[in-house]
Amino acid sequence: MSNKQKRFFLSEDEIPQYWYNIQADMKNKPMPPLNPKTKEPLKPEDLFPVFAQELCRQELNQTDAWIEIPEPVREMYKYYRSTPLVRAYGLEKALDTPAHIYFKNESVSPVGSHKLNSALAQAYYCKEEGVTNVTTETGAGQWGAALSYAAKVFGLEAAVYQVKISYNQKPYRRSIMQTFGAQVTPSPSMSTRAGKDILTKYPNYQGSLGTAISEAIELAMTTPNCKYTLGSVLSHVTLHQTVIGLEAEKQMAMAGEYPDIVIGCFGGGSNFGGVSFPFMRHTILEGKQTRYIAAEPASCPKLTRGKFLYDFGDEAGYTPLLPMFTLGHNFAPANIHAGGLRYHGAGVIVSQLLKDKLMEAVDIQQLESFQAGCLFAQAEGIIPAPESCHAIAATIREAQKCKEAGEGKVILFNLSGHGLIDMASYDQYLAGNLVNYELTDADIQKNLDEIQNL
Amino acid sequence: MSNKQKRFFLSEDEIPQYWYNIQADMKNKPMPPLNPKTKEPLKPEDLFPVFAQELCRQELNQTDAWIEIPEPVREMYKYYRSTPLVRAYGLEKALDTPAHIYFKNESVSPVGSHKLNSALAQAYYCKEEGVTNVTTETGAGQWGAALSYAAKVFGLEAAVYQVKISYNQKPYRRSIMQTFGAQVTPSPSMSTRAGKDILTKYPNYQGSLGTAISEAIELAMTTPNCKYTLGSVLSHVTLHQTVIGLEAEKQMAMAGEYPDIVIGCFGGGSNFGGVSFPFMRHTILEGKQTRYIAAEPASCPKLTRGKFLYDFGDEAGYTPLLPMFTLGHNFAPANIHAGGLRYHGAGVIVSQLLKDKLMEAVDIQQLESFQAGCLFAQAEGIIPAPESCHAIAATIREAQKCKEAGEGKVILFNLSGHGLIDMASYDQYLAGNLVNYELTDADIQKNLDEIQNL
Repeated sequence: MSNKQKRFFLSEDEIPQYWYNIQADMKNKPMPPLNPKTKEPLKPEDLFPVFAQELCRQELNQTDAWIEIPEPVREMYKYYRSTPLVRAYGLEKALDTPAHIYFKNESVSPVGSHKLNSALAQAYYCKEEGVTNVTTETGAGQWGAALSYAAKVFGLEAAVYQVKISYNQKPYRRSIMQTFGAQVTPSPSMSTRAGKDILTKYPNYQGSLGTAISEAIELAMTTPNCKYTLGSVLSHVTLHQTVIGLEAEKQMAMAGEYPDIVIGCFGGGSNFGGVSFPFMRHTILEGKQTRYIAAEPASCPKLTRGKFLYDFGDEAGYTPLLPMFTLGHNFAPANIHAGGLRYHGAGVIVSQLLKDKLMEAVDIQQLESFQAGCLFAQAEGIIPAPESCHAIAATIREAQKCKEAGEGKVILFNLSGHGLIDMASYDQYLAGNLVNYELTDADIQKNLDEIQNL
Repeated sequence: MSNKQKRFFLSEDEIPQYWYNIQADMKNKPMPPLNPKTKEPLKPEDLFPVFAQELCRQELNQTDAWIEIPEPVREMYKYYRSTPLVRAYGLEKALDTPAHIYFKNESVSPVGSHKLNSALAQAYYCKEEGVTNVTTETGAGQWGAALSYAAKVFGLEAAVYQVKISYNQKPYRRSIMQTFGAQVTPSPSMSTRAGKDILTKYPNYQGSLGTAISEAIELAMTTPNCKYTLGSVLSHVTLHQTVIGLEAEKQMAMAGEYPDIVIGCFGGGSNFGGVSFPFMRHTILEGKQTRYIAAEPASCPKLTRGKFLYDFGDEAGYTPLLPMFTLGHNFAPANIHAGGLRYHGAGVIVSQLLKDKLMEAVDIQQLESFQAGCLFAQAEGIIPAPESCHAIAATIREAQKCKEAGEGKVILFNLSGHGLIDMASYDQYLAGNLVNYELTDADIQKNLDEIQNL
């Protein structure tokens, strides 16, 4: 074996058999989601009309640290997992840093991102429970593509509401979903009451994730044997994503190293939690000194500038109240190209961990993120998703600190997806057409005031 | 290890150290390329003004069966090689076939296709010989993207002439090249004499591969320390691609199987030769019974309906005369979406092998290719490049024959690339807008008559 091995893989029988549920090990458990009317803590049964039952139980499970990955899901994981752990020699050289930089390459998933890890699990549980149809919403389309393929694998029909502006601006992701056999509807549509309400009020409305969620939930609630699925934010989604970190833990051991810093980009938290929680386990249980950095966009800074409050998970206020770092569910993020990070709140687990200072967050401006992405592309040959560029930018910052301090720290980041469907964004960046977005404290406070008393 | 292992990888020290040069083992060697003026057989030196010298020697080497992969190229291979050999259980199930179907997944290369295998080698040799700038042409952009990244790796400047209609219609591949730092010029351009000549004659000309080749060669010939590179057809390109088949040979052994049939799509021949020549070696040397099937588009059927003649490699007639199966260098292929297969001729090695009946060819209509691609996408989760769809279609035909005959044959095909940048083609297919193209014998004979006496 070469001394400079670049990629580390696990054999199929080393692929994790359990997901890691960090809730069981947290000293301060996440506070409970509340029924918005009664303000009573939510029970799994309250969620049964919307999600597959097993997912509802996973969502609120604070006792079992290890949850078995069902055999059929694990068999499907074997088609693309383990994903490679890569030593980024090219990036290290470009930065002239003594840091050892590793990345977990989730972009090699068939659908191009980590989203498939949870989509397969959610589709499987739906199938097991006799569900025939699944619905979801998608913005840029990474989650919608993953769910469309997962539904096909388990013989389910998938109906995806895609935010209309993305449906029109990013036609390739729509085509991918359709190639996998899904029905894709631009949202708002005339096929749901929620869609009709908004379209009759605002005839040219180009859609939002909040409206698309409402349409997908409504379809699930009004269709027999149909359930709704979500691609991030929720605890069960993050649970499924821990397969990333669990693999990385074994692969880092193959490389003979252990990370001093673990970094993930941050939208709702599932990719960040997925890569970091298995390492954080050792911090919680054994006091292992590792830093965990969530990299969020400066234009949607719930972790760095938001407040820890009970808030709705969606714009329309249909979900339970969640204890989260939030900018307010009415916060309208600027139209940055990292569509997957344009979400007002953070999942309840991450929110508690941040409150307890077990992790850190940094905010990255759009131009810095694309600059980092281009440097990475030229150094490693992989064009990263605009979302992943935020993790790369945070990694570069830390690697540069290492250079200044002469420290050879070990940095691990998650490359959540490739950017091949986002080349229009790179075009805009290279043409000098992208801008940063500055938020004043007043901009942020405005929406927070509205939700103080939810 | 599971009995149903899905993917097979080689460790980094098992990655081939040599490329396989089938010319050395062929009983009937390819006939020599000829100087079009003197009709004398070409010597390596004749090609020195255009290509790196080592590539010219490789091109005409008929004696050395094994050519060492330079260490720096092998180090770069380790970033994405071995590519996985995948057992296509999903496709087998969808076809209900007793055949065992395997595919070599070259789509996981950073640039999305097998093209990088040769781009890295060509850029390396250029760098070694003191070249500072490389040029090439590209149609859809797979080769241009690979060369752009390879040039960046070895510190060369890359100038790519992209066929103007593709430059405008497939902006994402242009963006990828630019993100890697290459200069991309729509061809015809006003920056070369060849470009000016055609633009002054036909002001709105949308370009062709032939014109783009002329521009790239002219730039190389008129620029100090600048060499031209080509992504297929030539024997040295196919040589570099044998890393695919050499890996597959070891990986098939890991799976405990040996292919009865090896299949690749066919444009100029480098991807087909790359996957099949290492297996064909055993047929030539040991009489091993394996079928080798090149899958070409019915609209550009040089192998199934062309003639074996001396012809030019480019439209303008700047290249040496090559002994090839050809439709004539003026043949204008229909505008199918598998842009990489729209080439009038076949490489000289493959042409000789076909003449000697060591391999077969089938032609695939456009609709059959996309039907196969969609079935594969739904069964395996990977959206194949329109070019690769032809190999999949040929595989499906053979798997269906196995079903009819109740034979569990082992089929290996090369998935040369993913189709994520080609989703507009899938859109057109799903919308029912694609058509087949029928060629009459008269259509084909017309161009062949012109070249009878070259």
